[in-house]
Amino acid sequence: MTTQQLTEQIRHKKSFLCIGLDVDLNKIPPHLLTEEDPIFEFNKAIIDATHDLCVSYKPNTAFYEAYGIKGWLSLQKTIHYLNQKHPEIFTIADAKRGDIGNTSSMYAKAFLEDLDFDSVTVAPYMGKDSVEPFLAFENKHTILLALTSNEGAFDFQTQKIEGKEVYKQVLETSKTWKNSQNLMYVVGATKAEYFSEIRKIVPDSFLLVPGVGAQGGSLSEVCKFGMNAQVGLLVNSSRGIIYASNGTDFAEKARAEALKMQQEMAVILENRV
Amino acid sequence: MTTQQLTEQIRHKKSFLCIGLDVDLNKIPPHLLTEEDPIFEFNKAIIDATHDLCVSYKPNTAFYEAYGIKGWLSLQKTIHYLNQKHPEIFTIADAKRGDIGNTSSMYAKAFLEDLDFDSVTVAPYMGKDSVEPFLAFENKHTILLALTSNEGAFDFQTQKIEGKEVYKQVLETSKTWKNSQNLMYVVGATKAEYFSEIRKIVPDSFLLVPGVGAQGGSLSEVCKFGMNAQVGLLVNSSRGIIYASNGTDFAEKARAEALKMQQEMAVILENRV
Repeated sequence: MTTQQLTEQIRHKKSFLCIGLDVDLNKIPPHLLTEEDPIFEFNKAIIDATHDLCVSYKPNTAFYEAYGIKGWLSLQKTIHYLNQKHPEIFTIADAKRGDIGNTSSMYAKAFLEDLDFDSVTVAPYMGKDSVEPFLAFENKHTILLALTSNEGAFDFQTQKIEGKEVYKQVLETSKTWKNSQNLMYVVGATKAEYFSEIRKIVPDSFLLVPGVGAQGGSLSEVCKFGMNAQVGLLVNSSRGIIYASNGTDFAEKARAEALKMQQEMAVILENRV
Repeated sequence: MTTQQLTEQIRHKKSFLCIGLDVDLNKIPPHLLTEEDPIFEFNKAIIDATHDLCVSYKPNTAFYEAYGIKGWLSLQKTIHYLNQKHPEIFTIADAKRGDIGNTSSMYAKAFLEDLDFDSVTVAPYMGKDSVEPFLAFENKHTILLALTSNEGAFDFQTQKIEGKEVYKQVLETSKTWKNSQNLMYVVGATKAEYFSEIRKIVPDSFLLVPGVGAQGGSLSEVCKFGMNAQVGLLVNSSRGIIYASNGTDFAEKARAEALKMQQEMAVILENRV
């Protein structure tokens, strides 16, 4: 998918919502546990109930790996369902991978080619040759961790290298890499005041924004400082939507929560100049 | 496994060799491709031929994920085989994971509990709460990326934060984390001159050292600057050993290469004061 197609979808749906499919068997409605593949059934129901309100789904691979082979099967079925039934949706493998060159190529192939996700999240610590193998895929996107939404972000990311924070160095350096037009960045909503600084470095890039909702970030603040002319934001919510209820009405309640966010987003999109 | 048990194994085998099981179907002997699970058959043959010469095996998860469900099955069979047949071996899931707290817990459970590896490699970019969930497992080890063996290591890891390189900040900060006694560190052999500096910060920790052989690092240099009283080193070789031949003699040739390294290591262990 091109970023232009993503932007068109955002305009059409009046939404830049990404729904995180972080599925934990201890949290999903108990009545699903008798299904052969409870995780896929849960995802399918959530997708069916919310796909017109969001532009992206983001399964975090940790939640699937935790269930071994079964979990990988659920992930595979989920991405196949999305690609077949809703090809307009921008899919993100939240995998936070990164290794030396030839090894990163294996990860890139796994997520962008075999599973056919539109994008994958990647960690920057190992530098250029750990990220460029992901960037080589045409019309696929590499979402690089810049400033994450967790407390540990202050351990290294906000430390200064020669007067400039590590996350800013990551943003600037990554722009020099081959096929850097395929880069997007993770920037946590919990640090909304950083967005204006970030936009000075990457004015045109899409930012994937976790941390709204459960982690306490404010949607309006993020949009105020982070939105660009092409919107340029994908705001993620996981637990706040998918675990809105754990009864038989879970999909309905998830839709209600997604609708609240979409309506808030529609107002923001309408009011911006 | 405790580090004491690992050290005893090193003394007993006169080896601190770790063999990287980075199995690529394009590189293994073609006669194995007709097997139902060529990757596992390859690993089994390599393990059978080399387990008395090394103290550790390190499958890199990328090579398994690249083959989807089948790959995960091969990984599962490999670690089960190691745990059942050679429980004295220190196993490393080279996964380079790291995510926000509750998500890192899922990864930790997947690798340290369900697959029952002795250790897992973890990326430090997201800081304390991304690593501590791994450290919580007793007698399991978290091998934190400090200074990697690739070219991209110079992009961020060797940059200075307030006069101190990022990788040194990672080493120092990580020592303050809960259960930091369960930490080991990845330090690339291609940067042997850095080892004496690193030993000033983490004198007692085990260092996992990739980059000897194919990537050009020198074993004697690494040992000269990196070895401590408990040896404290696991030196990894992957391609140089496992792909020594792609004929029917591949296991025999792998053993010959492993033996060369083990003998070099035995001499080093004998000669140190």
